[in-house]
Amino acid sequence: MTIKDIAKNCGVSVSTVSRVLNSHPDVSEEVRQRVLEEVERCAYIPNDSARNLVKSSSDAIGVVVRGTENLFFSRMLQTIGDEITQRGYAPVPHFIDSEADEVKAGAILEREKKLRGLLFLGGRYDYVSTELAAIRVPFVCCSYTNIFGTLNEESYSSVSIDDRLTACRAVGELISRGHRRIAAVIPARSDRSISELRYLGYLDALMENGIEADSALIEETGSFDMRESYEGVRRLLERTEDFTALFMISDTMAIAGMKALEDCGKHVPQDVSVIAIDGLNVSKYISPTLSTMVQPADEMARESVQILLKMLEDPGYSRHIRLEAVLREGASVRNV
Amino acid sequence: MTIKDIAKNCGVSVSTVSRVLNSHPDVSEEVRQRVLEEVERCAYIPNDSARNLVKSSSDAIGVVVRGTENLFFSRMLQTIGDEITQRGYAPVPHFIDSEADEVKAGAILEREKKLRGLLFLGGRYDYVSTELAAIRVPFVCCSYTNIFGTLNEESYSSVSIDDRLTACRAVGELISRGHRRIAAVIPARSDRSISELRYLGYLDALMENGIEADSALIEETGSFDMRESYEGVRRLLERTEDFTALFMISDTMAIAGMKALEDCGKHVPQDVSVIAIDGLNVSKYISPTLSTMVQPADEMARESVQILLKMLEDPGYSRHIRLEAVLREGASVRNV
Repeated sequence: MTIKDIAKNCGVSVSTVSRVLNSHPDVSEEVRQRVLEEVERCAYIPNDSARNLVKSSSDAIGVVVRGTENLFFSRMLQTIGDEITQRGYAPVPHFIDSEADEVKAGAILEREKKLRGLLFLGGRYDYVSTELAAIRVPFVCCSYTNIFGTLNEESYSSVSIDDRLTACRAVGELISRGHRRIAAVIPARSDRSISELRYLGYLDALMENGIEADSALIEETGSFDMRESYEGVRRLLERTEDFTALFMISDTMAIAGMKALEDCGKHVPQDVSVIAIDGLNVSKYISPTLSTMVQPADEMARESVQILLKMLEDPGYSRHIRLEAVLREGASVRNV
Repeated sequence: MTIKDIAKNCGVSVSTVSRVLNSHPDVSEEVRQRVLEEVERCAYIPNDSARNLVKSSSDAIGVVVRGTENLFFSRMLQTIGDEITQRGYAPVPHFIDSEADEVKAGAILEREKKLRGLLFLGGRYDYVSTELAAIRVPFVCCSYTNIFGTLNEESYSSVSIDDRLTACRAVGELISRGHRRIAAVIPARSDRSISELRYLGYLDALMENGIEADSALIEETGSFDMRESYEGVRRLLERTEDFTALFMISDTMAIAGMKALEDCGKHVPQDVSVIAIDGLNVSKYISPTLSTMVQPADEMARESVQILLKMLEDPGYSRHIRLEAVLREGASVRNV
């Protein structure tokens, strides 16, 4: 449909259509209306896109995203949405705060949107069965597990890295480069969640290598927030400078932590080596580049969708996959 | 509802309920079923949350987000969702690629979800009326304008910064600090979009200060991608080192650009000063911190929702607001 077709259908000249579209005043209201109606009538929307975007409500898959400022999740969400759409279902994304109750949000969404299944992008690690009973459709925990909880393994699926092992390998990398005084700045030692799990991995690495944990080298920030992470590293430095390496449990925390080190006159990696977990894109462009364990975000997203769709077909199906995080070496770690 | 209530309702002991919930094998299938059914029956979902999450379909407001890796948008989306929910409407977010057609996506969403209104979070600057006729509900362009297009101003609303003026002020800041050889690395000179607009602002600042534009100092990257930005700055440096400052049109581009300068042995700000536009959180934590014009993301999000809701009440209403971006001084600019 071109401007010529519209002019022809309305019985006016092309320049008149052009004047209408450009909101020129010198067109009668009657002609203007006729042209605009024709333009609207002709507005073309392909049928296949319309079909793919939203099929019947019984094809809806909810995606509850916990923490909208999480760079890692925003990267995964598009892959999840594309994968769901390609498989002929309709993604229904829903966003909640990083501290909000994803189960309640999912349960409400399930009823209101008549979902076939649910993907939780981020959530608590300590569900008990009573809570999850509110979810009456198959669901997949994407990027986390129920390791601190009591869910029956057959009642759900999960796709994530092994957080504890990944942290152990990150700290092991520091140890293999000669470090033994290794600090850890983490949201919390025992949050029954990702922070505790990665902290346990830190302790595992020390223990495996015969290094005694020193509580003076542990600092808690209360959250993943960059400002809190920055302040946490400053508090650590005020207490002690007796460490050669720093483990932080996320890239954004590490970026803020490196800034705190710098501001306190500590150079990375000359004075302090830094390693983290996540593998954000931005971490390749800071200076020095950050050594980090890269989570396979795309694979995690695709596997989660595939498992969920299999659960829809086969009510007895469930699966728990641990994908591998791979070290991406930056310039933030040196040998000592 | 506690575990005691469930035990009482099922006529079993608390420890039996506990065994069921912890998936112990020593419970009969009949009791297990009875307990789980009671647990599900009691699952508590407050009515007010259910009401707020999704009201009738005629209260649905679509939010089309263009470019899911855009850190700036992910920050605004939650504010938009909260604001829509608080005002008693239901947000319907939909994600598309940064190169996808937001109008078509919006039009499809409008029909399928029976939207009352639409918010476009990112989009093209050059709409013509024919395209937009497909959108039959009020809409707001959030973070951009129709400056290269031909829409009738009364037919829609927009909330954004003045991109051209903001770029002019960013480059003006460099000039006021003594710089006259100022390079610009941008996605494209004439994309009829944000890049062209911010490039024009760069030219404005030079002209206002009697500085002749030098095409040797302009490098195009083809996109906002960090890798392309990094390569763009390297190409610029291969061609010429005869500049003391660099203007980049987004924070993420500038972060990658500073890395390229560093890798080529140029120190920021000693050798080259760098300024950008956006004001991301991460830009406060890189080293040196980035001087950038901060977009008022929360205000932009809230104003967009408020204007859209007013358009729903009053079909004749439309408004175009330009909010002010404010310089956040970092350590990436020095006097020469």
